[in-house]
Amino acid sequence: MNVEFINPFLTATANVLSTMAQIETIPGSAALKNNNIAQGDVTGLIGMTGDKVKGSFSISFTKAAILYITKRMVGENVTTIDETVIDMTGELTNMATGGAKKLLADKGYDFDMAIPVVIAGDNHSVFHKSNGPIVILPFTIESGEFFIEISFEDI
Amino acid sequence: MNVEFINPFLTATANVLSTMAQIETIPGSAALKNNNIAQGDVTGLIGMTGDKVKGSFSISFTKAAILYITKRMVGENVTTIDETVIDMTGELTNMATGGAKKLLADKGYDFDMAIPVVIAGDNHSVFHKSNGPIVILPFTIESGEFFIEISFEDI
Repeated sequence: MNVEFINPFLTATANVLSTMAQIETIPGSAALKNNNIAQGDVTGLIGMTGDKVKGSFSISFTKAAILYITKRMVGENVTTIDETVIDMTGELTNMATGGAKKLLADKGYDFDMAIPVVIAGDNHSVFHKSNGPIVILPFTIESGEFFIEISFEDI
Repeated sequence: MNVEFINPFLTATANVLSTMAQIETIPGSAALKNNNIAQGDVTGLIGMTGDKVKGSFSISFTKAAILYITKRMVGENVTTIDETVIDMTGELTNMATGGAKKLLADKGYDFDMAIPVVIAGDNHSVFHKSNGPIVILPFTIESGEFFIEISFEDI
C-alpha cells in the first residue's frame, strides 16, 4: 500500500468532523495493524475499487464518541445508538471516504466507492482481510475516541 | 435493484458451503429488509462497484453456525471465534461474492470486488446504507443459522 493513501483519509475525516460538527479531532500515531485488535461500538465501512488497487475503509466509534458527534450534528441529546446514530455513521463514512477520494484523485489515484455498511454492537472487532498492510489511526475528541482503518492492495 | 442480482448470491453461497464443507443449506424466503434488524455474531462484508451500479454484500453467522462450518472446513473442533474463524469468514465472503460475480458476468453484469472486512462481536446488527432496496435471505444449516444481505443501487 502506497503511504500516500493514508493522509487523505486522516485529513478528510478530520475535515468532516470539523465542518459538519465543529469538532476538533486530535489524531494519534498511525500504526500498522498487526495483532492489535481495535474495537468499537459502532463501525461504518466502505469498499473501494480502482483500476489497479482495491481497498477498504472503516471508522469505529466508542459509544461516547458517536453520541457526542451525533448530538453536535443534530443539535439534540442522543442517549442510545438508534436509527439517527446509525444514519449519521453511514453519512460520516460516506463523507470521509468521498473527501479522501477527491484528495486521492488530485494525486492521480482514482477509485469508485461501494455502498457503506454500518455495524452496531457493543465492543465488536474489525478485521480487514487484506493481503496488503492495514493502517490504523486513532483519534481523540472532546468526548470519547474513534479510529479509522485503511487497507489497499494491488489487484 | 434488479431482481436478477439476488439468485446468483443465493446460489453461490449454497455452492460454497456445499463444495467446501459438504454442508447442505436450506434457504428461507427472500424478503425486503425494512425495519427488521438482522443480527449475527460474525459478519463478513464486501463492497462492489460496477459501471452503472454499486453494491454491498454481507453474510452474518450465529456463533453455532460459524463454529460448525469452520469445524467442517478445517476438520477440527473449534469452540471460540478465534483467528481461524475470522479468516474462514473472510474466505467464505470472498468465495460467495466471487461466485456471484461470475454468475452475474454471464448475465452481462460486471462488477469489481473490494477487500472483505470481518466483524466479530456478540449479537451485532448490520445496516446497509443504500438508496436501493436491501434484500435479506435467511439460511438454515444442521447447526445454527446465517443470513445474507444484498443491496445494489444505480450510480
